[in-house]
Amino acid sequence: MSPVTRYLASVAAGAALIVIGASAGHAADEAENIIKYRQNVMKSIGGHIANIAAVAKGQVTYIENVSAHARALADMTKLVAPLFPEGTGTGKTNALPAIWTDRAKFDAALKANQEAAAAMVDAAATNDLATIQAALGKLGKSCGGCHKPFRKKKE
Amino acid sequence: MSPVTRYLASVAAGAALIVIGASAGHAADEAENIIKYRQNVMKSIGGHIANIAAVAKGQVTYIENVSAHARALADMTKLVAPLFPEGTGTGKTNALPAIWTDRAKFDAALKANQEAAAAMVDAAATNDLATIQAALGKLGKSCGGCHKPFRKKKE
Repeated sequence: MSPVTRYLASVAAGAALIVIGASAGHAADEAENIIKYRQNVMKSIGGHIANIAAVAKGQVTYIENVSAHARALADMTKLVAPLFPEGTGTGKTNALPAIWTDRAKFDAALKANQEAAAAMVDAAATNDLATIQAALGKLGKSCGGCHKPFRKKKE
Repeated sequence: MSPVTRYLASVAAGAALIVIGASAGHAADEAENIIKYRQNVMKSIGGHIANIAAVAKGQVTYIENVSAHARALADMTKLVAPLFPEGTGTGKTNALPAIWTDRAKFDAALKANQEAAAAMVDAAATNDLATIQAALGKLGKSCGGCHKPFRKKKE
């Protein structure tokens, strides 16, 4: 083998190792990665809704921020359905098997959540606290549409 | 006092109690409430950036979701500056006093963060992984612009 050929072979081997390393550690869309991803979607939603609630309860006066929270939250609710493919119900997740045995009910609950989030965007646009409070009540109830039947109870 | 007058007086007293109760427990814009609010803004940002990073690292293939995360994150960065008024540096917060003794530097770091987040929105629109990776590197660095000099080290 010439030095140049040897060099190229070592580069190719190195590249192969990198590819293998990447796929071993971080295979795209492995269940573990999808679970972590959807939990971060929920984390974002949790932050946004907590802040809308803080305004609704009069804890802070940042009513002009509600639109940004509502829009972000509504965008996130649109991402959720495909984040629960078959095979992502075990490991570090609170997802219950009912998601996959009663998928139609799960999907209907997600759709109701999306609609409640869209209604919150409209409510935020009014800048009216009572309207925001009413929309938050409905939105919170729609979160329960999944969290009650389809999520493990917190211990 | 007539029964009607007595009734009205009791309603008024009840209403006053509710108002007092609300202001005692949840006075608007008390430091504690502002701290909690801004921590929830950071929580949302954390969820969004973790998910952009999951795409950038090839852990998940949801590249079409990056725009929603980037937009939400960019919207949140615009809210941050007013969430650090004087008097919100004590209690359950990791904010360092330097925020208020070196406010110009803090505000400049926030501005750089907003710009990096706006650039991430543009990068996401390309749907190109390398472009998103590059924007994420800059965005992460801009987060450090506040987290390094202005936030308590984690123990």
